[in-house]
Amino acid sequence: MQLPSVLLENAVNEFARLPGIGKKTALRLVLHLLKQDATDVQQFGAAITKMRTEIKFCRRCHNVADTDLCTICASASRKQNMICVVESLRDVIAIETTQQYNGIYHVLGGVISPLDGIGPDQLNIEPFLQRVQKEQPEEIIFALNPTIQGDTTIYYIQKKLTPAVVRITTIARGIAFGGELEYADEMTLARSLANRLPVENYVANR
Amino acid sequence: MQLPSVLLENAVNEFARLPGIGKKTALRLVLHLLKQDATDVQQFGAAITKMRTEIKFCRRCHNVADTDLCTICASASRKQNMICVVESLRDVIAIETTQQYNGIYHVLGGVISPLDGIGPDQLNIEPFLQRVQKEQPEEIIFALNPTIQGDTTIYYIQKKLTPAVVRITTIARGIAFGGELEYADEMTLARSLANRLPVENYVANR
Repeated sequence: MQLPSVLLENAVNEFARLPGIGKKTALRLVLHLLKQDATDVQQFGAAITKMRTEIKFCRRCHNVADTDLCTICASASRKQNMICVVESLRDVIAIETTQQYNGIYHVLGGVISPLDGIGPDQLNIEPFLQRVQKEQPEEIIFALNPTIQGDTTIYYIQKKLTPAVVRITTIARGIAFGGELEYADEMTLARSLANRLPVENYVANR
Repeated sequence: MQLPSVLLENAVNEFARLPGIGKKTALRLVLHLLKQDATDVQQFGAAITKMRTEIKFCRRCHNVADTDLCTICASASRKQNMICVVESLRDVIAIETTQQYNGIYHVLGGVISPLDGIGPDQLNIEPFLQRVQKEQPEEIIFALNPTIQGDTTIYYIQKKLTPAVVRITTIARGIAFGGELEYADEMTLARSLANRLPVENYVANR
């Protein structure tokens, strides 16, 4: 692609570095911005730069935050004795969007994966153990992705937890709502059979 | 979607205002930027703002430019007596990418379309007529999209051109390379029959 302006080319190249955005899409976005008011475009540039330079990570749960403590940790209406352990910020957002969880979080920043060179020391596991020691939560819910790495991480942390924690749970794994038995993999189907629920619970949860 | 940070939310909202980018994609892009170096993200923000505030339009052909005159108009290796009339910057880029054209351009900024309230006065037609008067080009090539509006615009401009211009042409319309006769619309097929080429020309152009 031959662009007649260096300024245009720089902007297109920057957009094209984003994941899933090729040169043609980048050009389309840049030409769109070229038609917008200069103040709107300045606001766009500023919002992105500001986000990256000013965002903090909550000192308690390692979630993103505008101040030292994230809005969830600082909220008086959330149960402070129930911690949901997740892999990443993306999972916090997914759970928050359900509007069904009223506790607080701990973001690990990944899962133990020796093949990728990620051990417990690269994750926020030690801060979590200290936090549990200090806060003495009543329940810890593991909401990690159902993979070998996720399960390893749960096993590792659970072994290190002092017996002070009353309940340690993990989110249910089973056939997804709207899914079909026939197409579920054996592992999922086997687990959902092993962890079957009394029908009255199922109806109550609907 | 519930986001735990206002900074994050602002950045996501700005991305989501771009065409074809929804909230989920915007979040994915912002989380990607969050993982990049702060200097890279600042560079991204700056490139976009700079593009919008500093870009100029060539005073001769109305193409985008970094200075008063665009690189194409300023180039000594381009034929300055052959002007290709296009609708938009996007068309300049498309033609430049073929690397087959060695003349200069004139960007109209649209085509005459009374239904959309676009008359000759909203376009760079008057500046084009003055330019032709002054520069006395040897050939004018119309490369407008083959629509009723495009044809109207060609007709309008052509009527206003002084007889000084030696050649006025338009890009060939016909069956696209790799296309099939069977699926071509009647108009295209009829025109490509009317404007048939001697086979020796066709072979020479390959």
